[in-house]
Amino acid sequence: MTEMDGGGLPVLERYRAVRARSLLLAAPLSIEDCSAQSMPDASPVKWHLAHTTWFFETFVLERFEPGFAPFHPAFRVLFNSYYNGIGERHPRAQRGLLTRPALGEVHAYRCDVDTRVARLLAGAEIATAPALADLVELGLQHEQQHQELMLTDVLHLLGQSPLLPAYHDGARAPQADGGALDWMDFEGGLAVIGHHGATFCFDNELPRHRQFVEPFALSTRLVNNGEYLAFIEAGGYQDASLWLAEGWDAVRTQRLAHPLYWRHDAQHNGHNGHNGHNGHDGGGGGGWREFTLHGEHKLDLAAPVTHLSLYEAAACAAWMGARLPTEAQWELAAQSAHAGALRQMSGACWQWTSSSYAPYPGYGSAPGALGEYNGKFMLNQYVLRGSSHATPPGHARASYRNFFPAGARWQFTGLRLAR
Amino acid sequence: MTEMDGGGLPVLERYRAVRARSLLLAAPLSIEDCSAQSMPDASPVKWHLAHTTWFFETFVLERFEPGFAPFHPAFRVLFNSYYNGIGERHPRAQRGLLTRPALGEVHAYRCDVDTRVARLLAGAEIATAPALADLVELGLQHEQQHQELMLTDVLHLLGQSPLLPAYHDGARAPQADGGALDWMDFEGGLAVIGHHGATFCFDNELPRHRQFVEPFALSTRLVNNGEYLAFIEAGGYQDASLWLAEGWDAVRTQRLAHPLYWRHDAQHNGHNGHNGHNGHDGGGGGGWREFTLHGEHKLDLAAPVTHLSLYEAAACAAWMGARLPTEAQWELAAQSAHAGALRQMSGACWQWTSSSYAPYPGYGSAPGALGEYNGKFMLNQYVLRGSSHATPPGHARASYRNFFPAGARWQFTGLRLAR
Amino acid sequence: MTEMDGGGLPVLERYRAVRARSLLLAAPLSIEDCSAQSMPDASPVKWHLAHTTWFFETFVLERFEPGFAPFHPAFRVLFNSYYNGIGERHPRAQRGLLTRPALGEVHAYRCDVDTRVARLLAGAEIATAPALADLVELGLQHEQQHQELMLTDVLHLLGQSPLLPAYHDGARAPQADGGALDWMDFEGGLAVIGHHGATFCFDNELPRHRQFVEPFALSTRLVNNGEYLAFIEAGGYQDASLWLAEGWDAVRTQRLAHPLYWRHDAQHNGHNGHNGHNGHDGGGGGGWREFTLHGEHKLDLAAPVTHLSLYEAAACAAWMGARLPTEAQWELAAQSAHAGALRQMSGACWQWTSSSYAPYPGYGSAPGALGEYNGKFMLNQYVLRGSSHATPPGHARASYRNFFPAGARWQFTGLRLAR
Amino acid sequence: MTEMDGGGLPVLERYRAVRARSLLLAAPLSIEDCSAQSMPDASPVKWHLAHTTWFFETFVLERFEPGFAPFHPAFRVLFNSYYNGIGERHPRAQRGLLTRPALGEVHAYRCDVDTRVARLLAGAEIATAPALADLVELGLQHEQQHQELMLTDVLHLLGQSPLLPAYHDGARAPQADGGALDWMDFEGGLAVIGHHGATFCFDNELPRHRQFVEPFALSTRLVNNGEYLAFIEAGGYQDASLWLAEGWDAVRTQRLAHPLYWRHDAQHNGHNGHNGHNGHDGGGGGGWREFTLHGEHKLDLAAPVTHLSLYEAAACAAWMGARLPTEAQWELAAQSAHAGALRQMSGACWQWTSSSYAPYPGYGSAPGALGEYNGKFMLNQYVLRGSSHATPPGHARASYRNFFPAGARWQFTGLRLAR
Repeated sequence: MTEMDGGGLPVLERYRAVRARSLLLAAPLSIEDCSAQSMPDASPVKWHLAHTTWFFETFVLERFEPGFAPFHPAFRVLFNSYYNGIGERHPRAQRGLLTRPALGEVHAYRCDVDTRVARLLAGAEIATAPALADLVELGLQHEQQHQELMLTDVLHLLGQSPLLPAYHDGARAPQADGGALDWMDFEGGLAVIGHHGATFCFDNELPRHRQFVEPFALSTRLVNNGEYLAFIEAGGYQDASLWLAEGWDAVRTQRLAHPLYWRHDAQHNGHNGHNGHNGHDGGGGGGWREFTLHGEHKLDLAAPVTHLSLYEAAACAAWMGARLPTEAQWELAAQSAHAGALRQMSGACWQWTSSSYAPYPGYGSAPGALGEYNGKFMLNQYVLRGSSHATPPGHARASYRNFFPAGARWQFTGLRLAR
Repeated sequence: MTEMDGGGLPVLERYRAVRARSLLLAAPLSIEDCSAQSMPDASPVKWHLAHTTWFFETFVLERFEPGFAPFHPAFRVLFNSYYNGIGERHPRAQRGLLTRPALGEVHAYRCDVDTRVARLLAGAEIATAPALADLVELGLQHEQQHQELMLTDVLHLLGQSPLLPAYHDGARAPQADGGALDWMDFEGGLAVIGHHGATFCFDNELPRHRQFVEPFALSTRLVNNGEYLAFIEAGGYQDASLWLAEGWDAVRTQRLAHPLYWRHDAQHNGHNGHNGHNGHDGGGGGGWREFTLHGEHKLDLAAPVTHLSLYEAAACAAWMGARLPTEAQWELAAQSAHAGALRQMSGACWQWTSSSYAPYPGYGSAPGALGEYNGKFMLNQYVLRGSSHATPPGHARASYRNFFPAGARWQFTGLRLAR
Repeated sequence: MTEMDGGGLPVLERYRAVRARSLLLAAPLSIEDCSAQSMPDASPVKWHLAHTTWFFETFVLERFEPGFAPFHPAFRVLFNSYYNGIGERHPRAQRGLLTRPALGEVHAYRCDVDTRVARLLAGAEIATAPALADLVELGLQHEQQHQELMLTDVLHLLGQSPLLPAYHDGARAPQADGGALDWMDFEGGLAVIGHHGATFCFDNELPRHRQFVEPFALSTRLVNNGEYLAFIEAGGYQDASLWLAEGWDAVRTQRLAHPLYWRHDAQHNGHNGHNGHNGHDGGGGGGWREFTLHGEHKLDLAAPVTHLSLYEAAACAAWMGARLPTEAQWELAAQSAHAGALRQMSGACWQWTSSSYAPYPGYGSAPGALGEYNGKFMLNQYVLRGSSHATPPGHARASYRNFFPAGARWQFTGLRLAR
Repeated sequence: MTEMDGGGLPVLERYRAVRARSLLLAAPLSIEDCSAQSMPDASPVKWHLAHTTWFFETFVLERFEPGFAPFHPAFRVLFNSYYNGIGERHPRAQRGLLTRPALGEVHAYRCDVDTRVARLLAGAEIATAPALADLVELGLQHEQQHQELMLTDVLHLLGQSPLLPAYHDGARAPQADGGALDWMDFEGGLAVIGHHGATFCFDNELPRHRQFVEPFALSTRLVNNGEYLAFIEAGGYQDASLWLAEGWDAVRTQRLAHPLYWRHDAQHNGHNGHNGHNGHDGGGGGGWREFTLHGEHKLDLAAPVTHLSLYEAAACAAWMGARLPTEAQWELAAQSAHAGALRQMSGACWQWTSSSYAPYPGYGSAPGALGEYNGKFMLNQYVLRGSSHATPPGHARASYRNFFPAGARWQFTGLRLAR
């Protein structure tokens, strides 16, 4: 889908930029930070760096490089994420035990593969160039997805430490929006949904197809921390009637009482007698603090609430007399002439929808192992739309379908209301 | 929604017939059979008998009976299934430990409530009669749902016994269909889906609404045991590429290799030398036997395959070059002029769809505890359409939405193909 | 080891008496009570009734009865407890799912085996009589052990019920002892431990052997509920320094705060204004109630504390400045001339010792499956001495070694102090 | 218990030597190797380095250093292993997530504490010197225990890697002993057991006391890999009659079939046609390989079998017609005039005994948090005697009591026979 310019240079430049960004994201971290795995769902940064390289080695070099030989034979297994078509893979929950290869060796692995991909791109014949460029582009999009995962996984790891260390003091945060929570109406009708045009998209955004949508309204911005705090203080986590049955089970068995990275600190309970200019925090928040990529800080009430499970998002929406949007509603709104009036559609946080992740009518996955990229996950997962402050610039689009299980909380997941 | 005839007699007659059928279903069982719980998802028959009675006591008598007093104060908790709005409930996994009340006491409970409901129906004033009749009808539909669960739960319990006892030698079985697996084409278009008319339906079948459906085809009958056996023998349970990711995990961790109640018996491997008239079994089946409500018998290759998880249904469909239908496709086909040419649409077994169980646009649940009947389960469950041989006659309809988690196998669940 | 009197009558009379007692113990229970299993460690009463019969069928009839044929071929597996030497066995945790055979069939099984054992005893030739009588006696001792287990397992089952039903209003209870907690000194020395004489004992009580014991003292009675309540009220369950490491883990992960069947009822908090004669309860107890075989009642402060794990027994002993006795200390004291001054040595509750269950020097188990009776459990279990109010009269003796894992709480287990 | 020589120099020299040895052991490892935790029972090397330092900081500096201030306030919690008396502690299973402090900071922590301890030792007044020296010696013995744990934990971590990396090519291995398995008889009698003399010992080796021991015999060397292989090949892991009940459960649920680090490699099955000098491996071993601190190599049949659970040790002993020794037998033999004829008593591998870890008569633990060092673990653990090739030279002695749960396999644990 991606066109390669004559000499292949634009693709190569893009390749170098995306690949360099991964290293940049890892730069603030120690060797130990890069190696640890805080839970089975998260992966070590070192593993992300290696796996994204494995992707190019396996799906690009192995197919196109004459006389291909693997950088290290064991890496085929160690850094295979979930591709049964490629063969065995290292157990997911034990990625943190892969002290070998060391981070330095993974850097060498990246270097070697980068050199070979660059050589390939430079010398590609006209016949193979488009297919090669498409696969390289897929690899880069894949790497961008992992760039966001690197940040969510690092945040989770650092959040386990009693020292509450910052990933980076200057890390980006989702932008606050102090404006009112207004509603925008949409007429619905026979919408056309899915990616169109010649630019890149994942296979799960296709085919473009018709879907009938009833009239609906969306909130003009995301629900923010202040509103979510009101939900908590109104007893939202104690009122079963607001929750889906599975969500209520989670509340009780996991003793959920607030978003993942919130912590109530009795010592910071609003009134710091010795601190006359405390008011600039905007007041309120009652001792609540939030752990973020730049450490723990006082809860910003105007910032979008994030690190919610779908359970929490749906319960808060119900408490606010609303619902989650469907993905068709979201995409239709994003396409509309008035989309500009909807704030925080992208770049703030991913927005849960009530749509289960399912194939579009006529969906067909690619043949071979690459067909496992998306299709086999289309069960018991829910679609998120938009993008977050941690999504690489330019990566997402209106038809983009992110997806996670309903209970996932370590992603940058928030809530836009529908009714 | 149900109209009560003048003197209330038709409702009362129906009440008596449905209530009596529950006792009839329990009749072949011993006291011990009625009391045991074979897994957390299944309930003892005694519990079903009490819970369905509790439903009338709680939602009918407590609302309408003057001077209402409960039959036994503890039953409010013991026989509450999942209604948080009613209060505490006995832990689901410990229903088999409720040796008290004894089965006899549960019979007395049923008698008492039946007498009081009958008295209420007989004396209902015109003002309250319709609301009362609607709730009684809901209670009867609810009891019919539990009548099927009694059979699936008993089958599971008896299936745990090394003695492989029959529930009832004369139990009904899904009908075999020796015909070819043909396809019927449908044009699709802007379908109108959901219940219509004045007759009873559950709230999840409403509101009737439009949905756009692409052209599709359905198989004219269900996939049968012979076809499923071919899938097994072709290595279906060993080929990851056929499975959804979650299904493949289930195959490996639960070591799935065949439908729930199949068993391969080397001693019955097709050729019973000493049994000259073995041929009437229809040949084939290679030693496979199936446990059913009338005991274990040789696998009937022409009968619809049942007790499949959605994982298995989807994998077998993929192997056969097809997919699961969506629920809209299924309902559209059931409404069509040619529906008669589709065999086994009801009365054979429930048919997995690829549709996650979600609220229809504009869905609203009832206020109060009854609102928990359906709505709170609309997450991580998948819709099944049709009905099974164990569904009470007249209970299901074209718009009926049954639902279970994708991994459930102890229901009478089978597979119709779509493409 | 047991001698059979001339005509075999005494053994037969004893056989009938012990076997009848099992039925007597089951008499107050409903069919459902007899069939349920409240946890993997406990067994249904029906299973106990069948298993003790299986023991006679397998180890007596199968060896001695000419032309032996099993009552039912499947029972060999269903009612085998843990004898690998006999073959397969039904999974322990699923004994409650054995709704078949029904209780009536188990009664028939008992009848049949009883008739055949009686015939065998009556006709035994002089050559085989002693071996036969020994095995019958072992079977009776085995059945007596299960008689106590029937009561502990029933208590546990009924304790799961919100109805808190009594097993039997007239059930025996451990006798209270209002006397002071005094100490009796023992000189120790080279003690001789183990069973001696021609009467029956289990193989784990042999061989009699020498063991060196330092001087020690034992408390003259068991620790009672009042003393244990003082331990609780002094914060015993919050003070890690009193607990063995594994015990402290259990306190935290299982949230232990009192003995198994205690319950604090704020409504019965000592001062029943409307009940002038409340004083006869002996005062104190502050709202604590205990569930027993005759239902729930106000905690009797003078009764021995029971249903303690070894963890709790050891922590309470430490709090009282004492320790658990070793089994050698206990047995030496029981043999001593002054044993009479030690109260509640038997018939109150089993007394935890600090001795791990291990073979005596020179211990050898019987050949064949019967060798599994005791020897294979000699690891990670701790010895209890004495007997409880639920132990069949005449069953225990000074050299008797009962044993359970340190965390077991559903037995009638209490605490005598040593120092 | 340890006497400090006049100016304190010998203690200081010893301090420096022991502390330096820990760093030496960590030297072959990468930062990642030092940070990972392969299972909850094992700890990262970095954690060992910090915890042993914490021990000196908490029990030496905090008590004796004027104006004591902690190196880092959070370390009190992070590096507390199990001392409830000190306060909170980081969850054991999450030690591998402590990416902060980095290894470099832990080195700085060690340096700082070493400087301060040295200053303290140099300036100690006569009054405090003995108490100080005793605590320093306890800290050094403690660090030596962790030195062995560092090696067992590293071995376990590296053993998880598909790359099977060597810790150190030159690591020591338990010495092979090609001699016959002979028996040495001991008379038994009233033995005196426990540490004596003025040298250091742990509190669990005291008090020295009398114990009566029957006559017994010990094998003159440890059971070796060849003998254990014969046990395997004779079907030892399939014969329930050889196993303790808990061991047989472990065999089935964990699918045990060989010692922890053995692996059967069909490609190395004895006959390497292309390798003419294969014979120098001593023949036999049939394709079995063992993973060790210097990588994976062909199984050395003459080396002592190691990494056995007590279950496996007891089953193999039973198969060889023998038993495990008691700890009193072992210690009595070690004290005897003929001890020299017993080979591999120390320096090869730890030897399971059948003795549960229990307090000696009259045992009393130290007051305060140090009292938790040993006493609270005296339940459900079994004593090992001797020492292994990984035990620091000079650390163990005849009265030394090592202890682990019966199922532990990652220590250097082997088997000497008794009868």
